[in-house]
Amino acid sequence: MPKPVISLLTDFGTTDHYVGAMKGVILSICPGAQMVDISHDVAPYAIHEAAYTLAQAWQCFPAGTVHLIVVDPGVGTARRPIVAEAGGHTFVAPDNGVLTMALGSDSEVREIAAEQYFRQPVSRTFHGRDIFAPVAAHLASGVAAAVFGKRIEDWVRLDRNGATVLKIDHFGNVITSLRWESFGWVAERAFELRIGSGLVSHYRASYADAAPGELFAIRGSAGYLEVSMNQGSAADRLGVRTGAHVIIEPPVG
Amino acid sequence: MPKPVISLLTDFGTTDHYVGAMKGVILSICPGAQMVDISHDVAPYAIHEAAYTLAQAWQCFPAGTVHLIVVDPGVGTARRPIVAEAGGHTFVAPDNGVLTMALGSDSEVREIAAEQYFRQPVSRTFHGRDIFAPVAAHLASGVAAAVFGKRIEDWVRLDRNGATVLKIDHFGNVITSLRWESFGWVAERAFELRIGSGLVSHYRASYADAAPGELFAIRGSAGYLEVSMNQGSAADRLGVRTGAHVIIEPPVG
Amino acid sequence: MPKPVISLLTDFGTTDHYVGAMKGVILSICPGAQMVDISHDVAPYAIHEAAYTLAQAWQCFPAGTVHLIVVDPGVGTARRPIVAEAGGHTFVAPDNGVLTMALGSDSEVREIAAEQYFRQPVSRTFHGRDIFAPVAAHLASGVAAAVFGKRIEDWVRLDRNGATVLKIDHFGNVITSLRWESFGWVAERAFELRIGSGLVSHYRASYADAAPGELFAIRGSAGYLEVSMNQGSAADRLGVRTGAHVIIEPPVG
Repeated sequence: MPKPVISLLTDFGTTDHYVGAMKGVILSICPGAQMVDISHDVAPYAIHEAAYTLAQAWQCFPAGTVHLIVVDPGVGTARRPIVAEAGGHTFVAPDNGVLTMALGSDSEVREIAAEQYFRQPVSRTFHGRDIFAPVAAHLASGVAAAVFGKRIEDWVRLDRNGATVLKIDHFGNVITSLRWESFGWVAERAFELRIGSGLVSHYRASYADAAPGELFAIRGSAGYLEVSMNQGSAADRLGVRTGAHVIIEPPVG
Repeated sequence: MPKPVISLLTDFGTTDHYVGAMKGVILSICPGAQMVDISHDVAPYAIHEAAYTLAQAWQCFPAGTVHLIVVDPGVGTARRPIVAEAGGHTFVAPDNGVLTMALGSDSEVREIAAEQYFRQPVSRTFHGRDIFAPVAAHLASGVAAAVFGKRIEDWVRLDRNGATVLKIDHFGNVITSLRWESFGWVAERAFELRIGSGLVSHYRASYADAAPGELFAIRGSAGYLEVSMNQGSAADRLGVRTGAHVIIEPPVG
Repeated sequence: MPKPVISLLTDFGTTDHYVGAMKGVILSICPGAQMVDISHDVAPYAIHEAAYTLAQAWQCFPAGTVHLIVVDPGVGTARRPIVAEAGGHTFVAPDNGVLTMALGSDSEVREIAAEQYFRQPVSRTFHGRDIFAPVAAHLASGVAAAVFGKRIEDWVRLDRNGATVLKIDHFGNVITSLRWESFGWVAERAFELRIGSGLVSHYRASYADAAPGELFAIRGSAGYLEVSMNQGSAADRLGVRTGAHVIIEPPVG
């Protein structure tokens, strides 16, 4: 029987004891759990970025995986901890919108209330260790989601109106919120994509099809339209950050 | 039967082969070991910082865990490798004070001398791979600590006199060496905390209780008094680093 | 029976979902695989650096390990994916020279052609997730290398002529391509080592034998001559980078 898998996604960074403490707590409750880091280098408090990163990774994992997300600027406030089930996977996170892109209309979301599963005493500043990690470990050990609390419908969704930059990746690729299935016509027609103060009007099928230093649009591996540079940082060239507005249109005339 | 757990804490960073080599050595000796990174981003040679990070993480792990710590500015000198037992956990480290905050007066500490457990030939520059990792793996495989060498009492302790900054964390929280159980009166009385060139005189129960940009004292999740800023870096604002002096007192008059 | 081990070496960094997605794919195919990160912080597109890092790490792992290397500036072009067997280990990588230092003349190298093992649809930009990770997972699950494609002899080798800086490590040690067994005479004779604009003419047996701030040659743990500084960055002092030329000679007169 395969071991339970727990993925971890946080903004804790890797210089502190925070991630190690959470993993220790998990192993104390669920010995043998297979823990996989998605990332701990989400920008601090960057809920949109974490939502995007989770959306790209979770479907690659086997059914039954418990995904533990702790990007939690509201720690210590009344924001709720939640557990959600979708597509055969389970998610444990603060209710701040970080699950927006992973959940659908048929997802079951519950407010976590069963304090007997928490690590006591619960601190005011580190719910990753005291609430989220122990709940994820108990879920991985076989405790049903319904045990943790009642269903809620009003979980927080992020506003996703308007085209924006979802993420700048490690290579400087600029990932826009334009879905390829809607905007893939750039591959066959003239277009103008305005992003920050820059303009992109070339499409390339692969990074290596572009000349050095050329900015181009490409179909990203996540299914979005991205702006890239062959072996260089498109984000640096354009001077854009996560959240920047994106406008795409067929050129005039 | 649960797999043996080995935690790792080093200043090796993650750009080189060093951590991977150590883990390969461990798996060659103890197949199936569950290895968990506490951090590899301790500042180079920062023994105090590593001591603090270890102290915060180790008790979250299950009993029986072997903790492998390699922050080792003295590699290649006569500094001793040691194995220590405390609280049902085992620690393998250079004898340079890095275990100061984890060990107590009843801990059993031994100098590692049993060279037959080392990876041969032992280099002058990478004892993590050649001494510490193999010893940790043999301990995890069931070899008793007593096999590795004789008990010693004069293991190195760090000087912990005076209040200082123990660590700046990823979020810019300033963790002082003031224990909450002794200085938690700041929550109920007026106080002045001087740190670097700055002054802090507000207490908040949670990050979110503070106004944006406000500096405040808070009970940290590690049990120490910390200085924080809501969604900002208190360390940057104060301009302080690890080791800075801290003075706390009720205000005059 | 020990679990199959898969090591990972990429230039993907740790801020994105890329590594997590690859690990999810692996666990979906080979539940229970023991995945070990060598590094994900190879400089982007730095094939030489990745070749060196792999060469230092792979022999520390147990026989039977599958090593997954994705440093792949040519993703989306006609560069071949390959699987190689050497020394009881298996390697999966793009055919761009990254295996140069790991493979020998008796290694068996195959072009990966068996598309039924790929993740469909195969993107143009993320073969790590769609080709390399699934092939590595199937290899770890017991599929023989010969199943994936025909042997080739013309796999890409990096040019290794001339003495250069192979790598700057996390501590600022400058690792040269001079093998200790050929150049270890520096320990016993006068020498001049020119590197960047600097000159090194001292040998030390260990870091701690040197005075603070002194530049010296030392036998590195990887078997190469390195230039180091006691508790400081030799690379910063010399102002050198990976690829810089190195000249060593007995001094004149």
